[in-house]
Amino acid sequence: MSQQAVEQPVIGVVGMAVMGRNLALNIESRGHTVAIYNRSREKTDEVLAEHPDRRLVPAYTLQEFVDSLQKPRRILLMVKAGEPTDATIAELKPLLDKGDILIDGGNTFFQDTIRRERELSAAGLHFIGTGVSGGEEGALHGPSIMPGGPRDAYDLVAPILTEIAARAPDGEPCVAYMGENGAGHYVKMVHNGIEYGDMQLISESYAVLKQVLGLTNAELAQVYAEWNQGELDSYLISITADIFGKKDPETGKDMVDIILDRAAQKGTGKWTSQSALDLGVPLPLITESVFARLLSALKDERVAASKVLNGPASKPFAGDRTAFVESVRRALYLSKIVSYAQGFAQLRAASNEYHWNLPYGTIAKIFRAGCIIRARFLQKITDAYARDAALANLLLDPYFRDIATQYQQALRDVVSAAVQAGVPVPGFASAIAYFDSYRAEQLPANLVQAQRDYFGAHTFERVDKPGSFHAEWA
Amino acid sequence: MSQQAVEQPVIGVVGMAVMGRNLALNIESRGHTVAIYNRSREKTDEVLAEHPDRRLVPAYTLQEFVDSLQKPRRILLMVKAGEPTDATIAELKPLLDKGDILIDGGNTFFQDTIRRERELSAAGLHFIGTGVSGGEEGALHGPSIMPGGPRDAYDLVAPILTEIAARAPDGEPCVAYMGENGAGHYVKMVHNGIEYGDMQLISESYAVLKQVLGLTNAELAQVYAEWNQGELDSYLISITADIFGKKDPETGKDMVDIILDRAAQKGTGKWTSQSALDLGVPLPLITESVFARLLSALKDERVAASKVLNGPASKPFAGDRTAFVESVRRALYLSKIVSYAQGFAQLRAASNEYHWNLPYGTIAKIFRAGCIIRARFLQKITDAYARDAALANLLLDPYFRDIATQYQQALRDVVSAAVQAGVPVPGFASAIAYFDSYRAEQLPANLVQAQRDYFGAHTFERVDKPGSFHAEWA
Repeated sequence: MSQQAVEQPVIGVVGMAVMGRNLALNIESRGHTVAIYNRSREKTDEVLAEHPDRRLVPAYTLQEFVDSLQKPRRILLMVKAGEPTDATIAELKPLLDKGDILIDGGNTFFQDTIRRERELSAAGLHFIGTGVSGGEEGALHGPSIMPGGPRDAYDLVAPILTEIAARAPDGEPCVAYMGENGAGHYVKMVHNGIEYGDMQLISESYAVLKQVLGLTNAELAQVYAEWNQGELDSYLISITADIFGKKDPETGKDMVDIILDRAAQKGTGKWTSQSALDLGVPLPLITESVFARLLSALKDERVAASKVLNGPASKPFAGDRTAFVESVRRALYLSKIVSYAQGFAQLRAASNEYHWNLPYGTIAKIFRAGCIIRARFLQKITDAYARDAALANLLLDPYFRDIATQYQQALRDVVSAAVQAGVPVPGFASAIAYFDSYRAEQLPANLVQAQRDYFGAHTFERVDKPGSFHAEWA
Repeated sequence: MSQQAVEQPVIGVVGMAVMGRNLALNIESRGHTVAIYNRSREKTDEVLAEHPDRRLVPAYTLQEFVDSLQKPRRILLMVKAGEPTDATIAELKPLLDKGDILIDGGNTFFQDTIRRERELSAAGLHFIGTGVSGGEEGALHGPSIMPGGPRDAYDLVAPILTEIAARAPDGEPCVAYMGENGAGHYVKMVHNGIEYGDMQLISESYAVLKQVLGLTNAELAQVYAEWNQGELDSYLISITADIFGKKDPETGKDMVDIILDRAAQKGTGKWTSQSALDLGVPLPLITESVFARLLSALKDERVAASKVLNGPASKPFAGDRTAFVESVRRALYLSKIVSYAQGFAQLRAASNEYHWNLPYGTIAKIFRAGCIIRARFLQKITDAYARDAALANLLLDPYFRDIATQYQQALRDVVSAAVQAGVPVPGFASAIAYFDSYRAEQLPANLVQAQRDYFGAHTFERVDKPGSFHAEWA
């Protein structure tokens, strides 16, 4: 135990991998004593050795850990999602008293959180599942925090979470109560899905600027830096500008050209798409982004295919280059709006399905700092829900509607140019398809229903009266 | 029992809803005596009353039903997928003897089939999960049948399945052994996903021809009838031609215009997409088709949105109309090929994951008749796998590669025209994006990996040497 540990720990953190360690240090830095525990003692000792002057109280058994905490106990679990989390909970459970609070801060699948909350509340324990976004740095200095669980238990941990959370530009802490049981982890999952969409769209803008206009990395660095001054102002655009300016210390070449074009993933994008499919919510853009990563991973197949499948002959760009760059910017911004419209529509459907009453405007607010998708534009989403809390789709809000009106031609032009040039833009193309579908009074789904009734007697609705009908087609 | 029932039933059918009833009648029509059972006796009596001269042996308890059958017993379950199937199996299980064969012909989720096969084989019972495609008519006159399960048990039911299956144009029966446990239901699931894709693409061709060229329903009937004479020759194109020629007897209007544009679904398309996501296989086209149905279902939201979200001003088509119709045909055919390439790539990944050794060429063969996606072009898939059984992707086969070479410009032109006209073509757009991604030696995923390493230290691969690397970005 370090010298400064005078008070009994107000909270304990289980799991001293980088996220748990940094959250413990973050909490301590706000003036609290923090109990720490790790399954193998080496990590605990490592943290103590690296931070000898901090109020960290080590424990080497869970019993010792539990005994050290103020009651009701507050225990933050930062262990691997899935079975390790279940195993840790099973070990802790018999050591706890009614009213104690377990907080799972891992990247947990929301259905697991729903199940665990049900099981633990039956035993008189409080269980909070919370999204924590912002990576290592966020954990240490201020993440965006999305907690879900019993409201009264949240109130008992809210002061600490509020202290350690990121601060938005207006000073507001990026933490808020999301709703019962799995609400927090669900919001975090959709956050990550949106992150997949943002990254895919930026990569498509890069492909178009590079392959259609022939911009160099230096020019790209400049373009993204400029974009970051306007509507697109965001963390991901700012790091994109940095990336294009970065040299590989080893070869002196541009770093971005040294990196293999095979994107990896950890599964939260996939979960988001699968949940959208379960809920019956159209989520094409994020899903195309997940599939784009999977396609990128087929590098060997692609290289082989590139030798036998030809595309269009490459032609020098004939139009106004500056205007086209602006079109790409507009295409990116409108596509991003379409992606968020889909993601927030999914949140709405999930909120109804799981009875969460999710606070949409507040969600956008707590995304404004600490997390990967932080961006100036999130304020516009908060504003939209302030204007209409029951908004069915963000595209219907006056601000987003106006952007759609002004920018859709640019998006159409960029998709056309890319498709003609053989540059894949699944995200941009999916964005305009969604926009045109959503605003379509009439879609060709009448033909689909006719076919279904023809071959399977699945029946159809009519335009002229209610009911369910079957036609004799043959 | 009807008068003709002389022999002991060689097979029994549980479930006298339309699919079970028609399969029982189909089997009986090949000269077999068939035991029939339904949970409520009314349906059984109804079948007997409607078909007094058939060799159908009714049973009113499962004990009676089981006792009536030749051994080893062959029992075809045609009950609702999910819990009703589990309940029926639980009731049957204690009545059966080792070596008896249960065949589930429902639209069962393949993971349920894997589980049931494991449980039943542990009890010495054989379990076959089989896809049955072709709807009511197919069941009665000849469906496409996709059985999976223990090979030796399949051999005991193969003669009957072969007798009742559809016949391809060359006379071959549309049934073949797919592989162990869930293989048959998996193939049926992907068949249905492909069906979603086919229907979506046809509906997009309809939207483009109608909204860009202004074709009337009579002209559309003509166009699809003509297309059905060529490469697109298929059941779905032929019924599409019929549909555009059909009048509503009630109003005298064209039937297709009377049908509400809200497409329904039963979940197998969703399963296909979710499984692709689990397997890490890019399946954007079928998934866009599932989302397109979900978007169509938001009819009220769409009508409201259509009043506030404007699209491009409509312009009369300025090009060569006949040439454009041909472009749409080519766009449809190439998109269909891309969709099947994705679906068969998914089968390949599933075959590896679940150790099925799926017979890809044979699968295309048994789709040639009986089922909804039956089409002349399926022979090309069989040919492709005959040329190269280990083909990584159908697009690499010479026939499909040549079509891609010849037709890609048409697909690009149709996507561009639709996007510029505000007509949503998520399937076509997704097809060209997949094609251009798959044939791309270089994708912009290097930027995605750079971003992931920047904000999360997720590391990246390099183009110049193997290994996993992290850069100091800040």
